[in-house]
Amino acid sequence: MDFIDGGVTAPLGFMAGAAAAGLRRGGGDDVALVVSARDCAAAGLFTTNVVKAAPVLLDMEVLGRRQDAGETPALRAVVANAGNANACTGPAGLDAARGMQAATAQVLSAASIQPEQVLVLSTGVIGVPLPLEKVAAGIAQAAARLDAACGEVAARAIMTTDTRPKSFAVRCELPGGGVTLGGMAKGAGMIHPNMATMLAVLTTDAAVEPALLERLLKASADRSFNCISVDGDTSTNDTVLLLANGASGVAVDSPEAEAVFGEALLALCTALAQAIVRDGEGATKFVTVQVEGLPDDGAAKQVANTIATSALFKTAVAGGDPNWGRVLAAAGRAGVPFEPDAAALWIAANDGAPLQLVAGGTPTDYNEDDAAAIFAQSELTVRLRLGDGPGAAKVWTTDLTHEYVTINSHYRT
Amino acid sequence: MDFIDGGVTAPLGFMAGAAAAGLRRGGGDDVALVVSARDCAAAGLFTTNVVKAAPVLLDMEVLGRRQDAGETPALRAVVANAGNANACTGPAGLDAARGMQAATAQVLSAASIQPEQVLVLSTGVIGVPLPLEKVAAGIAQAAARLDAACGEVAARAIMTTDTRPKSFAVRCELPGGGVTLGGMAKGAGMIHPNMATMLAVLTTDAAVEPALLERLLKASADRSFNCISVDGDTSTNDTVLLLANGASGVAVDSPEAEAVFGEALLALCTALAQAIVRDGEGATKFVTVQVEGLPDDGAAKQVANTIATSALFKTAVAGGDPNWGRVLAAAGRAGVPFEPDAAALWIAANDGAPLQLVAGGTPTDYNEDDAAAIFAQSELTVRLRLGDGPGAAKVWTTDLTHEYVTINSHYRT
Repeated sequence: MDFIDGGVTAPLGFMAGAAAAGLRRGGGDDVALVVSARDCAAAGLFTTNVVKAAPVLLDMEVLGRRQDAGETPALRAVVANAGNANACTGPAGLDAARGMQAATAQVLSAASIQPEQVLVLSTGVIGVPLPLEKVAAGIAQAAARLDAACGEVAARAIMTTDTRPKSFAVRCELPGGGVTLGGMAKGAGMIHPNMATMLAVLTTDAAVEPALLERLLKASADRSFNCISVDGDTSTNDTVLLLANGASGVAVDSPEAEAVFGEALLALCTALAQAIVRDGEGATKFVTVQVEGLPDDGAAKQVANTIATSALFKTAVAGGDPNWGRVLAAAGRAGVPFEPDAAALWIAANDGAPLQLVAGGTPTDYNEDDAAAIFAQSELTVRLRLGDGPGAAKVWTTDLTHEYVTINSHYRT
Repeated sequence: MDFIDGGVTAPLGFMAGAAAAGLRRGGGDDVALVVSARDCAAAGLFTTNVVKAAPVLLDMEVLGRRQDAGETPALRAVVANAGNANACTGPAGLDAARGMQAATAQVLSAASIQPEQVLVLSTGVIGVPLPLEKVAAGIAQAAARLDAACGEVAARAIMTTDTRPKSFAVRCELPGGGVTLGGMAKGAGMIHPNMATMLAVLTTDAAVEPALLERLLKASADRSFNCISVDGDTSTNDTVLLLANGASGVAVDSPEAEAVFGEALLALCTALAQAIVRDGEGATKFVTVQVEGLPDDGAAKQVANTIATSALFKTAVAGGDPNWGRVLAAAGRAGVPFEPDAAALWIAANDGAPLQLVAGGTPTDYNEDDAAAIFAQSELTVRLRLGDGPGAAKVWTTDLTHEYVTINSHYRT
């Protein structure tokens, strides 16, 4: 398995394009198209927020309806816009999302693409009516620019407060031959999808049955995108889409193929998820929070998420202050019982030796300068052991900085 | 019922004193004593954090043991220190907390106070051994300064990142005569007890049976201190203590007396809780989040807490940006089902007319300047209606500012 260039257009049979529809305050591309030359199987994961944006409701309908009917999905394109989330926009918003489908199908009619073969993504401000005419004009322009080399251009067009595009591709060898996977994503504000919208579009030229595609996507997302997310803590628009067009002529049709393909998909999702964290709003540090020793993985995840979302912990990381008391205090309020006297805590710089700060619930006689040196690094790991159970979890997060406050105090203005 | 001066020493028979034991980096008083001339009934509420500081474990033992044994509690004093939380300090920490009891009893031996009649409070850095000798010297000094006019001096000694003391007293007329209630508190970092320690000591010269005292304290705290707290989201040290010494000769012994006393206690707790919010770390605004229309109060509280703890909402308040989409997005991830299309949202400046921003889940045609003018105020209310149910809740919170990040990036250094 190797990482290669090209992003969503690295797999055979995919093209992408982007255009500036004038939705973004600062200008620049804000509409993106990803189009497959062939029918695709598709899978999607959507926000669990009660308040779902119109494009989420529409995509769920598109994918859900086809599954209900037992038909083979035959998706062809994804259309995305930044600058407007089309959320809290009521029935008019759903009409606008359908309008994006229709506009895409219209400009791609030469390729025989129907509106219901188009998935829709939106991100940006909530509660502002989507200016469909502008968006449709952007879609037409983006379609005119469709190219198999535009994966990163498309990734750039879906950025909001992201400072750089997230675009990766992976090539792997299945028993039947080589296949390629590509992906692009836009960042979640402060790295948690509850903080801003996370969107990802994944493509592959492998042939994968829809049910298997869904299962593989879910498994990979649980170990990547959902490691930067608090379960159930999502924005109105979070969406991950995976399209498989089979253009390689190689199918994922055996346990061996499934294992290799799954590994490649996980690597792709992990690269995108970690890139989102690294580019979190105002982020200066990449922190891995590991929790272990609890009865099950779910409990460990709950504790890890509580630490990773603690404003006190995150400001301490920003300040380079190894204030481990805040780690234990956050763990203690996660709603998971444990024996405080059994707690052990280590910190480590990227690839460095771990330094134990806490043993038996109380501080070791560690050297404060050593701890501060680790917290001064841009990448570090915090490992908390809370007992002897088999449950473990890992969450990636970042620090909470002045820059985060600046970005989010005036996001709309 | 009237607010009067004097804080914890306003009720008859209470004295307070403070001294500088050298625990606080910046200097100043950091040890406080509150002493009753007579035996007190006492009630306490403690953090639900799994990781409990030594003084919390000790106070729970003191109050719990007495209740188990069916004895009438006979408390006499509260000793408190700032600058060191005595948390994550293991058995040595518990010994140190008992040492604070012993030191207090020793210097007050002329008043026939026993160690087990002393409750202990600590706040400050976690995981640093408590320097008992220093603290004991401070206790001796504070005891030498005991005075019935030192309520506010004591309130000042328990401050950490607080910028001003929280000290209130209330006088009310029971059927049997007048009684006084006093209180002091120290602030919770960013207004949520999960963000820093909240301590409160309440006193009264009314005579109240222990069981009734406990019930009244719980009822008042639920509508005051717990309105600035996420249920279960607490620090290692959070504690509220209430001592009733009966020095007024007036008992709370009838439903009428209970009602008047309860109202006064709630007013006192509300004043302290709101003062904590107003003095939140870096806070520039006081925000009341009201949620209504859900099936029950618990669901409404859960939604209100999710909004009040949303970093995106709090930074928008800091920036004066009426970004209502963040309110709805936070509500939607609170884990409470509701019909998004029924959502209605109003904002209002203190005592001003409400401006409706959302009706039927979508924005009204409100004037953006009017909304911005309300969000520019230092006190404002956000009211979210999510259906027709009877459940309602109110939570007080504040904004998330640069100053908060500054304070918490370098709390220990």
